[in-house]
Amino acid sequence: MGQKNLFFAHSGGVTSVVNTIAAAVLDAAQEQAQIGRVYAGKNGIIGAIKEELIDVYQESETQRQWLYHTPASAFGSCRYKLDPQNTQVFSRILEVFKAHNIGYFLYNGGNDSQDTTHKIWQMSTQLGYPLRCIGIPKTVDNDLAHTDVCPGFGSVAKYVAISTKEASLDVASMAETSTKVFILEVMGRHAGWITAAAGLAATNPAEGPHILLFPEVAFDKTAFISRVQTCIKQYGHCVVVASEGLQDSQGHFLSQAGTKDAFGHQQLGGVAPYLAQLTTESLGVKNHWAVADYLQRSARHISAYHDVEQAKALGKSAVQAVLDGKSGIMMTIDRLQDTPYKWQIGEAPLASVANMEKKLPAHFITEDKMHITEAARRYLSPLIQGESYPPYLENGLPCYATLRNVLVDKKLPTSAVV
Amino acid sequence: MGQKNLFFAHSGGVTSVVNTIAAAVLDAAQEQAQIGRVYAGKNGIIGAIKEELIDVYQESETQRQWLYHTPASAFGSCRYKLDPQNTQVFSRILEVFKAHNIGYFLYNGGNDSQDTTHKIWQMSTQLGYPLRCIGIPKTVDNDLAHTDVCPGFGSVAKYVAISTKEASLDVASMAETSTKVFILEVMGRHAGWITAAAGLAATNPAEGPHILLFPEVAFDKTAFISRVQTCIKQYGHCVVVASEGLQDSQGHFLSQAGTKDAFGHQQLGGVAPYLAQLTTESLGVKNHWAVADYLQRSARHISAYHDVEQAKALGKSAVQAVLDGKSGIMMTIDRLQDTPYKWQIGEAPLASVANMEKKLPAHFITEDKMHITEAARRYLSPLIQGESYPPYLENGLPCYATLRNVLVDKKLPTSAVV
Repeated sequence: MGQKNLFFAHSGGVTSVVNTIAAAVLDAAQEQAQIGRVYAGKNGIIGAIKEELIDVYQESETQRQWLYHTPASAFGSCRYKLDPQNTQVFSRILEVFKAHNIGYFLYNGGNDSQDTTHKIWQMSTQLGYPLRCIGIPKTVDNDLAHTDVCPGFGSVAKYVAISTKEASLDVASMAETSTKVFILEVMGRHAGWITAAAGLAATNPAEGPHILLFPEVAFDKTAFISRVQTCIKQYGHCVVVASEGLQDSQGHFLSQAGTKDAFGHQQLGGVAPYLAQLTTESLGVKNHWAVADYLQRSARHISAYHDVEQAKALGKSAVQAVLDGKSGIMMTIDRLQDTPYKWQIGEAPLASVANMEKKLPAHFITEDKMHITEAARRYLSPLIQGESYPPYLENGLPCYATLRNVLVDKKLPTSAVV
Repeated sequence: MGQKNLFFAHSGGVTSVVNTIAAAVLDAAQEQAQIGRVYAGKNGIIGAIKEELIDVYQESETQRQWLYHTPASAFGSCRYKLDPQNTQVFSRILEVFKAHNIGYFLYNGGNDSQDTTHKIWQMSTQLGYPLRCIGIPKTVDNDLAHTDVCPGFGSVAKYVAISTKEASLDVASMAETSTKVFILEVMGRHAGWITAAAGLAATNPAEGPHILLFPEVAFDKTAFISRVQTCIKQYGHCVVVASEGLQDSQGHFLSQAGTKDAFGHQQLGGVAPYLAQLTTESLGVKNHWAVADYLQRSARHISAYHDVEQAKALGKSAVQAVLDGKSGIMMTIDRLQDTPYKWQIGEAPLASVANMEKKLPAHFITEDKMHITEAARRYLSPLIQGESYPPYLENGLPCYATLRNVLVDKKLPTSAVV
């Protein structure tokens, strides 16, 4: 189809390797005669709608190399769900693509984003606009179907496992005269993959974490308190890792458990402080709690080796896929074996990926619902093996890219769509 | 004074390098003919009172090597302030020391602990029991007088600066359509050193953190909200790092700002959730918040190079000090120059260190009270230069020691003191 330009964008919550994917796409595309310019969407798909296209080749070679190990999205991402009924917005995107001779669309995101890619592909086919559309998986939540793992998850899993190990050693040191319970709140609102990864820190029952609270398991106050008490008795302390999405048996989030501030306003979230208070009220022991929040998903300083390598491979293979004439697929990571860990790049039709949610399977959770099984360890353990460190500046901070993000000249009038 | 045994103990909140100090003491002492056995106190000074002495040479060579890069205290620490009026407890300690032929006492701790070392030294002199007492500094809070820096602080400073940098990139990515304010709560109840270290992540005003809230500065709600608003306007987002010890103008901790749960109970701590709620109520923007808690002080996976080297040097020099006949002093880190960073081991009389608290000096805080000055950067920057990584196991977790902690046989009847 002659030389066409490529449009790449990030979507949804970022990870520590979405820029790695971007950097790999840029490098792979630059080598190909079939591909002209590469444009990144400023703030994700919004960049396409607003015709805000970043000319990625205006960045210096150093910054482009640093992009490989810079967390979050250097081009900006967005939380913006395209309404499938709103054909206007899809038409606008295709109009912008046409104006900039874009023939390749690579979209890096989670469930919603794969759905968007699918819709744009369908629409381009309907309207007879030649566009090759490839989805690239992403999400720390690890909840995408058809890929063995989502880029970003391995690194957050490693960070959370190490941090849980370190905090467990800390509370064990202090337990005789001070803190006896430590609670760490991690991400994963609907799926307990990150919570499960924390479980890797315990290589025997005496080691923390002693209790994992998954969003897939309704919170049982009595069972929880009883288990905390047992742990304190047996090990002198108790380490708990809880999902931010923990719910009671009625399906209400514990983070909205009815706490109100002095003005009577609903108190904002925090499963960890809720559990900490519950523990203190029930058992009268001193606790500490932490909420990892963005720290976990942006912790590029301790990314997992395979996660970074998979991110590079996905970026590269997505470019190869469009050159091979493929479209309407999402690239995937397929596991070949657990030990030693082997994987390869695969693909799945977008139609089968979009809007599906992969929860933690029941056989990954122990019978008492508070820890992970051997099957879970077999799946999770390879993902945190190996360390991928960023280089550092002399000032002690990592070499993280700061892009200029130069926009290409607009060719269309401003749209009323966004 | 013939061959005598050495007693070493940790005290107070742990850091990621207290075990490094311990490992260095063990190795240095083992080489000396003047020193017999080395005993570590189980759970700090409580080990001396209860006559629970750990025979450190019963650990394997591998575990002792791993101790150099294991966070927290492998022997246990304690929060236990010895009442200076309670001569019974001091007598008991000396009685245990005498029973086990202990002639050298090395105590690794903060302000209170240096006071304890001082008291034990005075008491031993009074009672004519020959005991050489050396204090070794420690505390992530960096609030000890007479030492340029406290071991443990450099590593928490590096972790907090990097984490703030990473989370800042995250929120900057999301700000167009989602999170506009990110708040990180860090340790340092009375001194703002850790909060100040987070400031190193910003190398220009556009980069986060945009606002630092120090415990030395009374919280000004109006000025804070106004500054958040300006940052959102100028940079599209705002990153705040706040000390857990933030207080209002009446000296009340914000973490006890009167929030109550559904049962009317006082809501437990959390400056970050308090500020997050305040921001949302005032400006109606989406926020995220994190509480680093134990994660920051145990983050040995990204310790600062000089912090680890200083910990080793302090352990070694404390042993040398007792061999040189010194007593009643605390080993210190003396800074020789900022760039390139040079330091040496020094000493200060325990009497001058004990119970003093080194707060962030006024000239380290900018005029608007919300960031750090160039003087602060000159002091802080060298401390986070260089990375000290632990080795890793094949399972992806760091090689952290698990000691057997074998106690030596008791020689005294149980005491009623503890």
